[in-house]
Amino acid sequence: MARFLNVVPVDEAVAAAVGLARPVGTETVPLEEASGRVLGADARAETDLPGFRRSTVDGYAVRAAETVGASEALPSLFRLKGRVAMGAGASFALAPGECAYVPTGGEVPEGADAVAMVEHAEAEGEEVLIGKPVANGENLVLPDEDFAAGEVAVPAGRRLSPQEVGALAAIGRAGVEVRRRPVVGVVSTGNEVVPVDAVPGRSEVRDVNSYLCRAFCSERGCETRFYGIVRDEPGALRAVLERAAGECDAVLVSGGSSKDERDLGAQTIAELGEVLVHGIALAPGKPTIIGRVGEIPAIGLPGHPASAFVVLLVVAGPTLAALSGDRTDRSRRVRARLAENVPSARGREDYVRVTVRDGMARPVFAKSGLLNSLVRADGLLRVPAGREGFETGDEVEVLLW
Amino acid sequence: MARFLNVVPVDEAVAAAVGLARPVGTETVPLEEASGRVLGADARAETDLPGFRRSTVDGYAVRAAETVGASEALPSLFRLKGRVAMGAGASFALAPGECAYVPTGGEVPEGADAVAMVEHAEAEGEEVLIGKPVANGENLVLPDEDFAAGEVAVPAGRRLSPQEVGALAAIGRAGVEVRRRPVVGVVSTGNEVVPVDAVPGRSEVRDVNSYLCRAFCSERGCETRFYGIVRDEPGALRAVLERAAGECDAVLVSGGSSKDERDLGAQTIAELGEVLVHGIALAPGKPTIIGRVGEIPAIGLPGHPASAFVVLLVVAGPTLAALSGDRTDRSRRVRARLAENVPSARGREDYVRVTVRDGMARPVFAKSGLLNSLVRADGLLRVPAGREGFETGDEVEVLLW
Repeated sequence: MARFLNVVPVDEAVAAAVGLARPVGTETVPLEEASGRVLGADARAETDLPGFRRSTVDGYAVRAAETVGASEALPSLFRLKGRVAMGAGASFALAPGECAYVPTGGEVPEGADAVAMVEHAEAEGEEVLIGKPVANGENLVLPDEDFAAGEVAVPAGRRLSPQEVGALAAIGRAGVEVRRRPVVGVVSTGNEVVPVDAVPGRSEVRDVNSYLCRAFCSERGCETRFYGIVRDEPGALRAVLERAAGECDAVLVSGGSSKDERDLGAQTIAELGEVLVHGIALAPGKPTIIGRVGEIPAIGLPGHPASAFVVLLVVAGPTLAALSGDRTDRSRRVRARLAENVPSARGREDYVRVTVRDGMARPVFAKSGLLNSLVRADGLLRVPAGREGFETGDEVEVLLW
Repeated sequence: MARFLNVVPVDEAVAAAVGLARPVGTETVPLEEASGRVLGADARAETDLPGFRRSTVDGYAVRAAETVGASEALPSLFRLKGRVAMGAGASFALAPGECAYVPTGGEVPEGADAVAMVEHAEAEGEEVLIGKPVANGENLVLPDEDFAAGEVAVPAGRRLSPQEVGALAAIGRAGVEVRRRPVVGVVSTGNEVVPVDAVPGRSEVRDVNSYLCRAFCSERGCETRFYGIVRDEPGALRAVLERAAGECDAVLVSGGSSKDERDLGAQTIAELGEVLVHGIALAPGKPTIIGRVGEIPAIGLPGHPASAFVVLLVVAGPTLAALSGDRTDRSRRVRARLAENVPSARGREDYVRVTVRDGMARPVFAKSGLLNSLVRADGLLRVPAGREGFETGDEVEVLLW
């Protein structure tokens, strides 16, 4: 094994990890549980929607041509033919000179081609005066204007937002085919790592990374299976990864911040499958391993939580999305101006923790081992590999958490 | 009841709704289930963290002063005193002229004040040559540098992100006090509304809003209880709202897009509690009711799904956050340039659906009854009440979904 990592560019590393991820299968869930799940197949409208001409206001259905020139001083006069009830349909048609009251959402009767708002009308018994002209089609929705029969209402691969769930309700999907939640195995390694409820002895640290990984996976719609804290012994890690390969859709191995630990991780992954990447031109996050154990992707994360988190965002995020069949762009990017210089070494992508306030990005300079900076920062500023940093006042793009 | 709504400004309406919301109580959950929950009390570090001087690199612990002037041509010479093992602590101190190998994350021995990276060192038996000077404190973390004893690691009111869960792990919180999930009752009303698995007859529509409301609440960490589709009859709605007042922390009543329906909703809420707002200077979303039934907030949403969604975002969102004790700023605002003029009436806040691509915001002009525009748009452009719209090229702020 090489003493120094043979680093590859970030794009290449991400492509390698994503290339190992096979989308999980689908299952059908009730629509009321579909929020946040990934749609498994295009959802098409079976019929035109709303399916009838629907008023968008409370008002009077009229022929638009008969309101031309109407004003408050000289309103157009109509005879009230009837009132349309909600959900009951319009049981009559309008002849010239006639109008009908239609509530918001009600059906616009035959013969009418527009609805005059009630605010511009005065009714007196059978007579209705319209004080403002309406255009043909005004204040109504056509039968296929929301969704036409056969139209894709929500495309496959969307992580369903509330409004997409609403669209599925509109087209009548009481059950929805969604991707099942991928199961991600999480392994912590390191002789110095103790459980979260233990008091760390001198030179020991609590197991932060497994919680970071589990919370990250959960936020991205995955289930997780925790395989415990594994000591730095070849047999122990091997046994755990073999189990994970049989039980999970991917596995995240955290720890291995020192070279000896990393080498052990890479060697074990190589024995059970293959190592594609060992070292990424990424700071923090350089000592990352990408490979597979059996048929599932395995990502070896650095031991420092702040480094591990950058690798979760940059590498594991796209990998979990590929596993989940998720084609939603969930990146939260904002543009901001830099309040301070950000130096960087050319040849690697630097991710600098920043706060963003009032359009100004301010670096949170912190050592990669520290968690507090992750909590204090609002997101990451990416410095591309081809740049030697940014200067005060530069417009930059920040990836918000 | 007044024929036309007596509208109030958006800020006033939101303040009224938020003022009715009392934060729910707390419960303790295991840390691995705390992601996305709202922290109930400040979480403070009990001890300094990491608690010992920790190396952030693989390298050699040295006295920085002894590397002054070191170069590849003229390196500083050290005697290797020993190697620090992970988790085992440094069992020895360094005298002048001595160094120790420390892996990333290992303890830096007494006597050293910096770590020289292994990449800048050459070891030959007991002799180590350092080819680059290090500064005092370089490549190590101080005992209280992540969190000091007594410091707030994560403040109360945060909706826990993965990195905050990581911080809680670091300070040893195996169980976390979080707000319980508020229970939100959801009621659909309207004689024209049929269940999602029914084929709507002429002039009927499927129950979109209850799914929209439930998915929205679920996305914001609330549980929901669905009370079904209630016909426009005073007794029916009253019975359901009475039950909801006893079983929920808030209730959303959707439907009532026409004036008659709205009046019925407002009247029923008034009978069971109080109506504070009936009509907001908001488009779409004007016919909104804010009140209480018993002691819980009740929000009456417009019947058009696209209007209902704007009211969910603008009014229900802050109300649910207040109920949840959530003080996280979850707004996703981006700045963009307008690709087209956006007209608006002065005196009301207009929310215009827009797409955002490459920094350009483009309005999705659509009637308020249509769901498809909600699915196609990326977010909402807010036109303040004091403006008559925006012009092409104006820089605007977009509230992303």
